[in-house]
Amino acid sequence: MTDTYTASVVGASGFTGGELLRLLNGHPEFEVAQATSRSYERKTVGHQHPNLRNMDLRFTDPQDLESVDVLFAATPHGVSMERIDAFQDAADTVVDLSADFRLSTEEQYDEWYDGHDRPDLLEEAEYALPEINRDNLDGADLIASGGCNATATILGLKPLFDADILSGDEQVVVDVKVGSSEGGAGGGAASSHPERSGIVRPYAPTGHRHEAEIEEFLGLSVSFTVHAVDMTRGAAATCHVFPDGPVKKKELWGAYRDSYGDEPFMRTVAGGGGVYRYPEPKAVAGTNHGEVGFELDPGNRRLVVFSAIDNMMKGSAGQAVHAANVALGLEETAGLEFQGLHPVGAP
Amino acid sequence: MTDTYTASVVGASGFTGGELLRLLNGHPEFEVAQATSRSYERKTVGHQHPNLRNMDLRFTDPQDLESVDVLFAATPHGVSMERIDAFQDAADTVVDLSADFRLSTEEQYDEWYDGHDRPDLLEEAEYALPEINRDNLDGADLIASGGCNATATILGLKPLFDADILSGDEQVVVDVKVGSSEGGAGGGAASSHPERSGIVRPYAPTGHRHEAEIEEFLGLSVSFTVHAVDMTRGAAATCHVFPDGPVKKKELWGAYRDSYGDEPFMRTVAGGGGVYRYPEPKAVAGTNHGEVGFELDPGNRRLVVFSAIDNMMKGSAGQAVHAANVALGLEETAGLEFQGLHPVGAP
Amino acid sequence: MTDTYTASVVGASGFTGGELLRLLNGHPEFEVAQATSRSYERKTVGHQHPNLRNMDLRFTDPQDLESVDVLFAATPHGVSMERIDAFQDAADTVVDLSADFRLSTEEQYDEWYDGHDRPDLLEEAEYALPEINRDNLDGADLIASGGCNATATILGLKPLFDADILSGDEQVVVDVKVGSSEGGAGGGAASSHPERSGIVRPYAPTGHRHEAEIEEFLGLSVSFTVHAVDMTRGAAATCHVFPDGPVKKKELWGAYRDSYGDEPFMRTVAGGGGVYRYPEPKAVAGTNHGEVGFELDPGNRRLVVFSAIDNMMKGSAGQAVHAANVALGLEETAGLEFQGLHPVGAP
Amino acid sequence: MTDTYTASVVGASGFTGGELLRLLNGHPEFEVAQATSRSYERKTVGHQHPNLRNMDLRFTDPQDLESVDVLFAATPHGVSMERIDAFQDAADTVVDLSADFRLSTEEQYDEWYDGHDRPDLLEEAEYALPEINRDNLDGADLIASGGCNATATILGLKPLFDADILSGDEQVVVDVKVGSSEGGAGGGAASSHPERSGIVRPYAPTGHRHEAEIEEFLGLSVSFTVHAVDMTRGAAATCHVFPDGPVKKKELWGAYRDSYGDEPFMRTVAGGGGVYRYPEPKAVAGTNHGEVGFELDPGNRRLVVFSAIDNMMKGSAGQAVHAANVALGLEETAGLEFQGLHPVGAP
Repeated sequence: MTDTYTASVVGASGFTGGELLRLLNGHPEFEVAQATSRSYERKTVGHQHPNLRNMDLRFTDPQDLESVDVLFAATPHGVSMERIDAFQDAADTVVDLSADFRLSTEEQYDEWYDGHDRPDLLEEAEYALPEINRDNLDGADLIASGGCNATATILGLKPLFDADILSGDEQVVVDVKVGSSEGGAGGGAASSHPERSGIVRPYAPTGHRHEAEIEEFLGLSVSFTVHAVDMTRGAAATCHVFPDGPVKKKELWGAYRDSYGDEPFMRTVAGGGGVYRYPEPKAVAGTNHGEVGFELDPGNRRLVVFSAIDNMMKGSAGQAVHAANVALGLEETAGLEFQGLHPVGAP
Repeated sequence: MTDTYTASVVGASGFTGGELLRLLNGHPEFEVAQATSRSYERKTVGHQHPNLRNMDLRFTDPQDLESVDVLFAATPHGVSMERIDAFQDAADTVVDLSADFRLSTEEQYDEWYDGHDRPDLLEEAEYALPEINRDNLDGADLIASGGCNATATILGLKPLFDADILSGDEQVVVDVKVGSSEGGAGGGAASSHPERSGIVRPYAPTGHRHEAEIEEFLGLSVSFTVHAVDMTRGAAATCHVFPDGPVKKKELWGAYRDSYGDEPFMRTVAGGGGVYRYPEPKAVAGTNHGEVGFELDPGNRRLVVFSAIDNMMKGSAGQAVHAANVALGLEETAGLEFQGLHPVGAP
Repeated sequence: MTDTYTASVVGASGFTGGELLRLLNGHPEFEVAQATSRSYERKTVGHQHPNLRNMDLRFTDPQDLESVDVLFAATPHGVSMERIDAFQDAADTVVDLSADFRLSTEEQYDEWYDGHDRPDLLEEAEYALPEINRDNLDGADLIASGGCNATATILGLKPLFDADILSGDEQVVVDVKVGSSEGGAGGGAASSHPERSGIVRPYAPTGHRHEAEIEEFLGLSVSFTVHAVDMTRGAAATCHVFPDGPVKKKELWGAYRDSYGDEPFMRTVAGGGGVYRYPEPKAVAGTNHGEVGFELDPGNRRLVVFSAIDNMMKGSAGQAVHAANVALGLEETAGLEFQGLHPVGAP
Repeated sequence: MTDTYTASVVGASGFTGGELLRLLNGHPEFEVAQATSRSYERKTVGHQHPNLRNMDLRFTDPQDLESVDVLFAATPHGVSMERIDAFQDAADTVVDLSADFRLSTEEQYDEWYDGHDRPDLLEEAEYALPEINRDNLDGADLIASGGCNATATILGLKPLFDADILSGDEQVVVDVKVGSSEGGAGGGAASSHPERSGIVRPYAPTGHRHEAEIEEFLGLSVSFTVHAVDMTRGAAATCHVFPDGPVKKKELWGAYRDSYGDEPFMRTVAGGGGVYRYPEPKAVAGTNHGEVGFELDPGNRRLVVFSAIDNMMKGSAGQAVHAANVALGLEETAGLEFQGLHPVGAP
């Protein structure tokens, strides 16, 4: 294929890096040229990612970057801002999956993170969620793929802003439930199977950094709490919203249809019969789909919005590939067609 | 032992009934005289409850009630109000684990349930949570053991009322996560292992009936949503509270200590080190303990309260035995000393 | 596409039927013309299979079969032998996923099942595992897709026969561990989440019917025991083999390479570093891959063979599509390219 | 209580140490005088073991051992043989839960472990399983509590030796399935929740050291393979036995009744109705009970024996307390009365 783009994955031995390898390997327009790992240099990618045992590729030193069309950085927060010049030297398009370029101002990084080394690049970087920022992604050089919990929340609430049901002044509580892959491959006592299985654990009771992304891209302050539950993949955001005036179901269906009716990866699930009546992580596990839905609680003047994604896919690697597809003018769904499984256990 | 009380369990083949059998069998002051089951008459109790294989007892016909000191009814909602005369004929003290006698007025049953057959008894019945209603339980004839999700919520929020941090007019969102035993032993497609494992499923998005108990016993309207997650036992309530004025941590520690410092089954867990920093269902699985804790989110003027119980124990059978202990003037912790396990999987 | 084959799935609301719909929907050479279900007629396929919510198709009455190129029957045992004439009237190629046409003689059905209604068709029917029977599948009219536990076992042991390490007279114990999807979508108390989660349960201690397939296609009597464990998908067969003479590792690597070196769906995993050193169901979940591996125990003159598949894929729906690909002369991997996920929870 | 024995737990921050604390704390005849931990000195025991948050005790330096009646050592293999003099100086009775004193000869330690520092003590040390060695435990000074997987296997097979159904020359395959607590609290990549959940993983395909205990105490060489599955507690041994002659069910029932009819912690489960027809780890989780059962496979001249224990209890801490009860002449079941839970998730 003469038109194939070359891609590298920096930080390819981690969970997100492995997911990028899987997606790019199955992508009709990409060829994986390099997968780097400090700890597993010269090992096959299958050594770390058993699903990729058929893939004939070995990890290389992250200091020796090959020249490629697109570089995906799946490194811990802080690495990309330090190595961004090397990344941009190596590739025309850089897609960063960390938080390093998601926010727009140095002040935000001072408030939510430990400051920023390269504030000069913050304006240039484009935030991906394609669903809220598609136009800016076209031809972008530096793309900051959104955070998983922020993505779930923004996808759930955005149609309410589009439809003027929310203005940004309302009280909104977001109670998120996430799987263990959010903790990464590193481990530690809290992530060990005996301690981590079967839990409902408040792991970010308040002050989660993804609040900053939600505030920037929705213009909304949210009361945000994240719980760890027993699944490996998945993020489910339950948004308890208190709109100013009464809202009708028909309005809500209209709002979600207007925002997502043409989106290839979004679907609205609200009631109906069967076992799966609302968004569920299981229904989208392994896919780049997002599910959103809602229910009204008139007695409390409350609107409950449910949103579910696979944190490894729509919440990181899938979203990054989606954004690269948009940036390069490819078919948006290219390489992201997997429909998910049923039944599936703890996804 | 001449002082032993005889007890019967009606509806003993269900999950809650089995838990009652286990507790009463190990209780120093009770002797199980009868365990009834419509479906499993003449089978050993171990046939349904493998942990009770050592117990030499067979299910009998629920229509043939023996005369006992205390009758525990672990039947589906609606059965107790129908059979209450027979229950009271058979026993001096009736402890009902269903919702049939929890609320005080017929109007509430009209609003939240399908009305009530025996409104004449509603005033006589005493609600158990011992932690909020201990004095009324002493010598009570008819005790209505509280609902699991209501119990978790009430235990979390009550100290805030006792300490005048909440008055009842505040906005409170309660986001509950529960295990599969809440669905009972019956099953159905949604409860089957392939469909139920690994889920975060909104199973009562709005309008859960336990709101009525919370409203009655706290005087507070809550925005209540229940999710099913992958565990068998356990209910964790996250209460997002917006007090009128500023609240300090010291005040909160004081409030929880004042309310629960002398309670044998309550402990407050809020921060500190280690893996388990807040209340978790795993930490109380199998026990009659409740854990409560909190965190402040000053930026959002929010107070987050966490509460965790074992829905089968503190949320039903354990609470019922605790109430019976109070009613009969026994040691409150009698038969309820089990400290729980570590590690434990999905509890 | 003028060359597309039309396909129908009979029994499409069950787990295996849903998996067939997913695979055929994503298959470049198939178009799904019909999905039948007695219980869910007129419901969308997404009502039963949440991963297929994007698929615009409704279940129809199984009595009204459309004329198609290939009919896949995912019905309970006994249905296909009763309806085979209707199936063959409707389609040139019938792929049956039940046990109805797997064995060759009426005597076997008398011994292992409740006899057979259509023994006249047993000779015509071709057993699929493509890995052992590829040549006979080319152009076949009636294909009997292999049983999941038999498939895992046969795939593990076949190379030992090909390489004359086993002759069929040896003592072989096969201890299988399977997920809950093997029980189907029906449910029942033993399959309910509270009873089924976290188990190691001997569910077919002896006399499992898949012994018959193993005996027929390997010429080997095996001591076969199946345990249910806590996963949704997956079958792992541990074969404890006692060869007559000494065996070396090099010989074994040779045997597995000779049998599977060119097989698109098989890989051999035996030792090496990392977390996943032997075949594991997690490593193949959602895929049509099979993993086999081995270890020697010279002190006991034992050879341990491990084999892992996804029972829903390589063990049923994936294998059926693979067989159809072979029968129609298509690319063998068409529609079966999914590489699986890492990490994945209980698959 | 003037008659209470004082006890210390060395290595009390690990899983087994925590279980010992729980058991001794609830034991009517013991008082916990000391709990040591190198890593968590001065922390409360509840810091590591959330179920023990109510216990008023802090970890102390393992080098400063108090004088007690009984010292329980829950340290990694190798520590006890190094510190045994200090242990015996501190306590009249030492119960070691590691492998350091289980085998009788230095040769065995040379073969299966890395030799032994104190072979002079091997003869003095008494192996506990009380079920096979009760008489020797009475008054013993140094007790070596048996290994979990060996315990499950020995308990399953011993009645067959007692009844002369097995002589020790037969072919026996033991296929064990264990939970994640066997790996201890340490963790590591293979034990992290994303990698460890939902697995069927051959973690000791051959050569497991517990073979040595089985060989010593049953006089039987077994072909032994251990798999890790998704539970936290539990060990289930499936023993595939090939007796020389025919065996009848009645004989088997007799054998198990003769061996275990009077044992307070053993029960035989073989068929019958209901969901739990054979031994299952779930049915004994948290308890000191062991379940054994069997099924005949006449076509293969095979007898399948099932055995299930909680590896943390009957497989280590519970067994150690049981042995101490025997050694001190206490009621055997003292402190070990917990009956287990139903339902329980992944135990």
